[in-house]
Amino acid sequence: MNDKLKSIVEDIYQDIINGRIPKVELKSRNKENIVFDNLIGVWKYGNEAVKRYASKASSALSILKMLYIIDFVDEMERGKKTSTLREMYYISEGWGLGKFQNQDESDLMTEDLEVMTGLLREEMHLRPEENGASLIGNITIEELNRKGEWKRINCRDDVGDAGYTIPSNVEAEKLKFVGHDVDFVLAIETGGMFDRLVENGFDEKMRSLLVHIKGQPARSTKRLLNRLNKELGLPIVVFTDGDPWSFRIFASIAYGAIKTAHLSEILATPNSSFIGITASDILRYELPTDKLNERDIEALNAELEDPRFNTPFWRAEIETMLKIGKKAEQQALAKYGLDFVTDTYLPEKLAEIGIE
Amino acid sequence: MNDKLKSIVEDIYQDIINGRIPKVELKSRNKENIVFDNLIGVWKYGNEAVKRYASKASSALSILKMLYIIDFVDEMERGKKTSTLREMYYISEGWGLGKFQNQDESDLMTEDLEVMTGLLREEMHLRPEENGASLIGNITIEELNRKGEWKRINCRDDVGDAGYTIPSNVEAEKLKFVGHDVDFVLAIETGGMFDRLVENGFDEKMRSLLVHIKGQPARSTKRLLNRLNKELGLPIVVFTDGDPWSFRIFASIAYGAIKTAHLSEILATPNSSFIGITASDILRYELPTDKLNERDIEALNAELEDPRFNTPFWRAEIETMLKIGKKAEQQALAKYGLDFVTDTYLPEKLAEIGIE
Repeated sequence: MNDKLKSIVEDIYQDIINGRIPKVELKSRNKENIVFDNLIGVWKYGNEAVKRYASKASSALSILKMLYIIDFVDEMERGKKTSTLREMYYISEGWGLGKFQNQDESDLMTEDLEVMTGLLREEMHLRPEENGASLIGNITIEELNRKGEWKRINCRDDVGDAGYTIPSNVEAEKLKFVGHDVDFVLAIETGGMFDRLVENGFDEKMRSLLVHIKGQPARSTKRLLNRLNKELGLPIVVFTDGDPWSFRIFASIAYGAIKTAHLSEILATPNSSFIGITASDILRYELPTDKLNERDIEALNAELEDPRFNTPFWRAEIETMLKIGKKAEQQALAKYGLDFVTDTYLPEKLAEIGIE
Repeated sequence: MNDKLKSIVEDIYQDIINGRIPKVELKSRNKENIVFDNLIGVWKYGNEAVKRYASKASSALSILKMLYIIDFVDEMERGKKTSTLREMYYISEGWGLGKFQNQDESDLMTEDLEVMTGLLREEMHLRPEENGASLIGNITIEELNRKGEWKRINCRDDVGDAGYTIPSNVEAEKLKFVGHDVDFVLAIETGGMFDRLVENGFDEKMRSLLVHIKGQPARSTKRLLNRLNKELGLPIVVFTDGDPWSFRIFASIAYGAIKTAHLSEILATPNSSFIGITASDILRYELPTDKLNERDIEALNAELEDPRFNTPFWRAEIETMLKIGKKAEQQALAKYGLDFVTDTYLPEKLAEIGIE
């Protein structure tokens, strides 16, 4: 069993045999204890901690459930299995008093264990439902498959046009980088645009790895971008629609999210660049637009208060978008034909951030 | 250019040079002209036809737009390009009078062209947004990639654990079956269950091809199931959640949908079998359930009036579900552990339909 999980169990065992009331201790997840670290630009936990003592029935029950989860993780580890969060919730039907009331409860407790151990839930063999984000480009990886063999795949030559699908666990124990011949990573919001760049051969033309992040990216996609940046030194460039929700996609890749503040260092990539559609682009390229609706306007105003957008670039772009009252999609670039995005838009935007 | 598209243009040209008013003719898409063919068990168009004459300004405009689409399809064919329906809508910005008011209009006209020509829109190089349905199992295919090379892929040995992603065009011109060693195809509704069967090695244990259909399947997924059944003679077995919406997923795979009645013969697979969770299964396996909500009850009642569910099996199961007032998910089988579905449930249900 993983040492960190083991030590939780050992501490409780020691408490019991020494006649002390068992307890677990973890960082407080109150909003007040989650702070934006301006220096490295990500959300992090403060130092406030909470202790849960088994002297109260509800806390004792919660410790019992946690032990059941740890036991289940151990069982999966020994059987080389994984399970979805949903499956674990159903499996708890057989745990007597350990049975969860609903999946929110088991999901939250899984997060508690992440906060306590610093492990990703994927490392505890618990994975979310399907994701299906994919990538294409000249990088060779090895994936440990279900038979325990390392399978080598070149993500340009050994896959169909839909690319290589990112697995839910992308830690080094499951996915290794073997070699690559690209200069940067382009993370793309929509499938339509990903397919466009693939069809236009942008990965070869601009020596890039194209990643389809599928809207708000899953943890595994963010973790993979983080590893590509840290381990291979590849710049991460994010290409999205031009609306407040897409700005948040970028923020979540670059600075992390409040919900995963305990994992910011491995999920966020603070030096990512944004080349998605901006209000300036809407004006400069005269793009087809939609009107901002009320929710869009609210979201933009909220972003003006968000520390992640507190830079001159973002303030100016958000204010311009509010002023013109319009948003635009990536695919609106098709106004000028199917090749405009790869021949004109992307080369111009990439040159602005020094990639040519 | 495709002959059927060409003949539309030629007819209009002949009308014009011979001083006749140009027209297009297609089968009526009124609900009254869409009938359920009980003999082969799919939705089909009746014989009622409509003619659109260019003598009215609105019809003339609609014919102009259709010619623009055909020209665009021809341009893509020559340039070996494809585009999303969304891109085409944006591209029409440059078509002067041919510009579409909204994407509904261009989508509908693309369907008109399908009805008129019998071509799939994918064959006209127009594809929907991303899909990402995937499959895993011992089948070898060849996919024509963007470089024009036929890429051979064994969908068990040459892919990661996420499987092979189904491309949006699965016609023989893009995807060929080279060989296989499986007895049947198992189409699975949710990603969580697909991953479970993959991890448990169900494809090898029961010599099956596992297809993750991602909820209500995309046209390309249904078309692929149809080809696997017709060309390779493989039975299609559908494994879903137990609720009225999942029953409709099965119905759409087996009998087609009203919206695609003109394509039923290539999208529907009438001899498919259902082994998803039923009301009987909920009782027999004592599965964890959720209560039916009002929308569920309405949907079940509507299904009692739907010709696709007019069989003793479906009537009994729908009535039982209404009586017990409960539904259940595929993953609820995890109540009995991670292996129950592959060791017990599926072998039992498959034996009932003669697969052992």
